[in-house]
Amino acid sequence: MFEIAELDHEIAKDEYETRSAELRERLLDAQFDMRERGKQAVLVVTAGVDAGGKSETIQLLHGWLDPRHIRTRAFVDDEQDHGRPPFWRYWRELPARGLIGVVFHSWYQQPIEDRAFGGLRSAKFDRAMDDIRRFEQMLSGEQFVLLKLWFHLSKRDQHDRLRALEKNKLTRWRVRDEDWQHHDQHEQLVEVATRALRTTSTDFAPWIIVPGKNERYRSLVVGQALLDAMRNEEVTAPSAEPAVHPVPPIDGLHVLQTLDLSRRLEKPSYDRELEQWQGRLATLVRRKKFAKRTLLAVFEGVDAAGKGGAIRRVTAALDPRTYDVIPIAAPTDEERARPYLWRFWRHLPPHGRVLLFDRSWYGRVLVERVENFCTSSDWLRAYGEINDFEEQLVEHGVVLVKLWLQIDQGEQLRRFDERKQHGHKRWKITEDDWRNREKWSHYEQAVTDMIDRTSTEVAPWTLVEANDKHFARIKVLRTICERLEKELR
Amino acid sequence: MFEIAELDHEIAKDEYETRSAELRERLLDAQFDMRERGKQAVLVVTAGVDAGGKSETIQLLHGWLDPRHIRTRAFVDDEQDHGRPPFWRYWRELPARGLIGVVFHSWYQQPIEDRAFGGLRSAKFDRAMDDIRRFEQMLSGEQFVLLKLWFHLSKRDQHDRLRALEKNKLTRWRVRDEDWQHHDQHEQLVEVATRALRTTSTDFAPWIIVPGKNERYRSLVVGQALLDAMRNEEVTAPSAEPAVHPVPPIDGLHVLQTLDLSRRLEKPSYDRELEQWQGRLATLVRRKKFAKRTLLAVFEGVDAAGKGGAIRRVTAALDPRTYDVIPIAAPTDEERARPYLWRFWRHLPPHGRVLLFDRSWYGRVLVERVENFCTSSDWLRAYGEINDFEEQLVEHGVVLVKLWLQIDQGEQLRRFDERKQHGHKRWKITEDDWRNREKWSHYEQAVTDMIDRTSTEVAPWTLVEANDKHFARIKVLRTICERLEKELR
Repeated sequence: MFEIAELDHEIAKDEYETRSAELRERLLDAQFDMRERGKQAVLVVTAGVDAGGKSETIQLLHGWLDPRHIRTRAFVDDEQDHGRPPFWRYWRELPARGLIGVVFHSWYQQPIEDRAFGGLRSAKFDRAMDDIRRFEQMLSGEQFVLLKLWFHLSKRDQHDRLRALEKNKLTRWRVRDEDWQHHDQHEQLVEVATRALRTTSTDFAPWIIVPGKNERYRSLVVGQALLDAMRNEEVTAPSAEPAVHPVPPIDGLHVLQTLDLSRRLEKPSYDRELEQWQGRLATLVRRKKFAKRTLLAVFEGVDAAGKGGAIRRVTAALDPRTYDVIPIAAPTDEERARPYLWRFWRHLPPHGRVLLFDRSWYGRVLVERVENFCTSSDWLRAYGEINDFEEQLVEHGVVLVKLWLQIDQGEQLRRFDERKQHGHKRWKITEDDWRNREKWSHYEQAVTDMIDRTSTEVAPWTLVEANDKHFARIKVLRTICERLEKELR
Repeated sequence: MFEIAELDHEIAKDEYETRSAELRERLLDAQFDMRERGKQAVLVVTAGVDAGGKSETIQLLHGWLDPRHIRTRAFVDDEQDHGRPPFWRYWRELPARGLIGVVFHSWYQQPIEDRAFGGLRSAKFDRAMDDIRRFEQMLSGEQFVLLKLWFHLSKRDQHDRLRALEKNKLTRWRVRDEDWQHHDQHEQLVEVATRALRTTSTDFAPWIIVPGKNERYRSLVVGQALLDAMRNEEVTAPSAEPAVHPVPPIDGLHVLQTLDLSRRLEKPSYDRELEQWQGRLATLVRRKKFAKRTLLAVFEGVDAAGKGGAIRRVTAALDPRTYDVIPIAAPTDEERARPYLWRFWRHLPPHGRVLLFDRSWYGRVLVERVENFCTSSDWLRAYGEINDFEEQLVEHGVVLVKLWLQIDQGEQLRRFDERKQHGHKRWKITEDDWRNREKWSHYEQAVTDMIDRTSTEVAPWTLVEANDKHFARIKVLRTICERLEKELR
């Protein structure tokens, strides 16, 4: 894999001057165009052997390009990352579309080093590569162009380069003991890298191997690759219509119909149970074990299904300093400029807190699907993206509870009428509410597809019969408590 | 000051039920209206004696109001705060206009406790109160309504309350040893609080003393106060035109005219000096002492003054992993919803980094003033707000360098023409550029006022003669290096 990179590439000084001047003009143009369009972002991911020229090259690119519109980040271990899943640090620094982000110490660093120099087992390493592949696929689907650069040096060239750096008193500080240790294990690194590059070189995010030895050659390779990446218009084209769509059940039977919406709870029982479950919840989140966990509950349901009321019955049991309710409405412009899930990642709290989502990332496969706010490809790939996201949450200790509150059309109409009569502006019915109602069967289809595809073993949906508010609220509280009890056991 | 709060207030159960039900309706209405308008935020600041009922009251308010649109934050010491000025933690959590924020452990907590129970000297305490007063004045000017609640208990009532909490096995955990220690020092706390409340009770942010003993009375007091705060329409009214404006110099003489714009640097000297100063800068930021500092440089100047070029000569000396350039253009909608300086606070990096602003918070007193994007009151109070902001930065170890690049009208025209001829889209001249040019004298006046009012001893302006780009770039680099050298000595 690295044979070509070990050839002795040479570029004469004159030729380099001419080509680099020309390249720089084009890079600046492309960067300007990209920013004007604001449709895609370029993420430059750097990896490779020590002393392979990563820093020098990025330094050069900052010189060639307009540094006001590049963000370079070296991801080092940071206190505040600890409370969140590993990928959180990358999510929070994702540039807006139109900009270039450069990632040092990317998501490849840890698994490759741990496998080459530490004790990471092969199966776990492969699993890490698999996670990365799906992360990159999501980014690519979100118009983030990935330029993955592997800076290579043969063992011999690496030796010469480290020696040269050591000899110069201006660069001596850059050579750490660790570099020489890694140098001794050059073969292991190359072996691991070969596997990493092979398994993560995809059509949407191929690796580019950069020969590290000759500075001029290296610079031109990277400059040209970045130019291509910025000019890549294809990814901004609307995704092609996928060939296969979910098929609605031919007999019209679906999971929502299996619910017994006549279930009720009378007021005296409700009052008793409410007090009991709220007390239980209050005790559960005060347990010592909870300090290392997070409770994240997602409330979904059609308009007037009673999400707000159910949420209030949950928060009533909690200390206001420990929870947040996140109502999901239209995204802000900063959110619109980034991949879909960014607006949810940004709210992830450290451990020990409770987060309640009033509507959630499932909007992608519900309202955005039904109202055509996104393409079919977007919502079809969202199922997998959401499952990946939730798996990361759960693996990181988040107790994830997903609640679908179901009412029937008659009950919705009754509640709309009640709100109208009440005449209270807080409950005003909007045009949207009536329009959504007309699309009841479309939403029903979207909901059943959603439950079908995202009720996973780690993050199952709980369907809540919500025609009777008392019954629904107690079921919500009970579901949360029982999940917490199981998880904190 | 606390006499009234120590009276034995009583509210009968029936009366409470009626009044609280009515109050709740009104609170929900007011919260809804406030969110619809999106013009002001309410910040509830809680403080007071231990066991005075802070938590219970906030818990109650969360129950009365819609918890989806309240953010409650308890500010405890956090690792990530350490690299930033003390107020950073409050800035980053400021709610958007339209929402309610509740602040536990506010900016009052530390100085009051340190003064009452620790060794904080009187002068330092007064200085802290002064900083707070100015912070709150800024918030108030930005349509943030401050509801400051001091929960009071007499020493005797506090004793009874702590005992009661200890007796109940459900609340026993809440009483810490510290609470009893503080109880013993009740007199000291009251003395310090009296001074704090007196010096920070302003027309824009008065304190409200909440009698803590009787739960019903306390709840109604806080509920009513919050209702008033949300209904406070006055603050959303456009500020009155200030009575006094800066007077332009009657003889037309101003500081910019004192610059010798004919200063030049020939190419050979430039090349030599550039290398020298860039090398010096590279060495300076790699010094050990710099790891505890931050370099923040502000670049301001009229269009085509050469800000971008100067910035690139600075970044060329730096490791891309250690700096960011922040170009300031139109604010995002998240930024627009918060106080003006929020969009700059949010970029503040931890120590050891370099931040370069291409335009900055000075937009408030330049373009926003000249183009009437804000009211006269807004830009007039901005001078003081900016000085406060910069003082906080400097006190926290930020090396702040403010550069004004000055060219004359002839040179600007020459550069515009050059750009037009170059025909390069990156340098396209917009309508705005020509319009700004017509307002040259207005900008000149704004610039001189700005320098006059914000060139402070801790953060002076450096005026850069920029008709010759070579001269300007070297002066910029030299200014930065010399400031760093002085600061890192």
